[in-house]
Amino acid sequence: MIPDISALHSEYRKSKLSEGELHENPIYQFEKWLTDAIDAKVKEPTAMTLATVNENNQPSARIVLLKFVNEKGLAFFTNYQSRKGNELNKNPKAALVFFWTELERQVRVEGKVSKLSRKISNEYFNLRPKESRISAIISPQSQPIPNRQFLENRVAEYLKNNNEIITPENWGGYILTPRTFEFWQGRENRLHDRFLYKKIGKRWKISRLAP
Amino acid sequence: MIPDISALHSEYRKSKLSEGELHENPIYQFEKWLTDAIDAKVKEPTAMTLATVNENNQPSARIVLLKFVNEKGLAFFTNYQSRKGNELNKNPKAALVFFWTELERQVRVEGKVSKLSRKISNEYFNLRPKESRISAIISPQSQPIPNRQFLENRVAEYLKNNNEIITPENWGGYILTPRTFEFWQGRENRLHDRFLYKKIGKRWKISRLAP
Repeated sequence: MIPDISALHSEYRKSKLSEGELHENPIYQFEKWLTDAIDAKVKEPTAMTLATVNENNQPSARIVLLKFVNEKGLAFFTNYQSRKGNELNKNPKAALVFFWTELERQVRVEGKVSKLSRKISNEYFNLRPKESRISAIISPQSQPIPNRQFLENRVAEYLKNNNEIITPENWGGYILTPRTFEFWQGRENRLHDRFLYKKIGKRWKISRLAP
Repeated sequence: MIPDISALHSEYRKSKLSEGELHENPIYQFEKWLTDAIDAKVKEPTAMTLATVNENNQPSARIVLLKFVNEKGLAFFTNYQSRKGNELNKNPKAALVFFWTELERQVRVEGKVSKLSRKISNEYFNLRPKESRISAIISPQSQPIPNRQFLENRVAEYLKNNNEIITPENWGGYILTPRTFEFWQGRENRLHDRFLYKKIGKRWKISRLAP
């Protein structure tokens, strides 16, 4: 029997968020909060939940790591034939959520993904430690496998054959181009501060949402 | 300028997950991991990302708190007219993700939600602190509001009028009935352990997935 969880929650008292302090561009606002999370030594500050949808309108979601952010959007890398890869190839609409509990902050993003260039994917692939590059090469991501030994054998075989360690064809990056951004700062008594940025043409419209 | 985040990641070395230790019912397996998270003093152990989909096949996702789990599924409460409420009323398919960084563990769940009874929603509502019940009553969740004062005025007005604090009509619970469950234990060199439970008739079929 698990403990009674119904009353488990924290009161959020650390901070607040007001109209005046918001940057007019949500990418800069995001970079500020991400930097705060890194400075506060949040564990896995770049971890985000990525939500995708399959052809039966069933959403799925999993953690991925943000690998860069710039004026075009937020980037991550994966196996293009993984479940998320397959779903994004058919429906590029996706959502992201960051939750930095230590700062009582949440960021939500929605938009469409597109594939990053082979050049950018190669550059990032080559930054990764050798062992994790080999894992990416030998792992048929999201497919059923008989046991752990299967993976370990494939790694050993790959090393024994002295194969080149180059980016697999089916591996690379996506960038999510945001259409909406929401910044959520937890407040006491569930009266949280929420601000929604919505892209209208080339401009961002900001509104406060009821918590 | 934010720091270079491309190389930010942890090596996961804390634990492993093998076929032999899995409970045949994923609800029990989940309860075990949730208890571990509570025992390890994870911050907000019941926080989960809920992904829903709108009529344009655009997913959205946000944090909600798990309020109970039983053999029927996983329950949470919300305003039925919030964005998630509106999306779930049209398409009950949803996904959940827990990420307990301190334990290097992730749980993913997919299924359909249904509304909990008024009786259960009332019971939970009445467990909440008075201030947070009032906030739930006065907040037009997910709607644009002019400023923070708007909320604070509504709280003050509610208190002044000595209104009854009863569950709003448009507020209550959902329970997600799982069709799939995935348990993910981070491992070194990205060779993570992943096990998928899939409901086939009344039984759960377990398979190991490639990371």
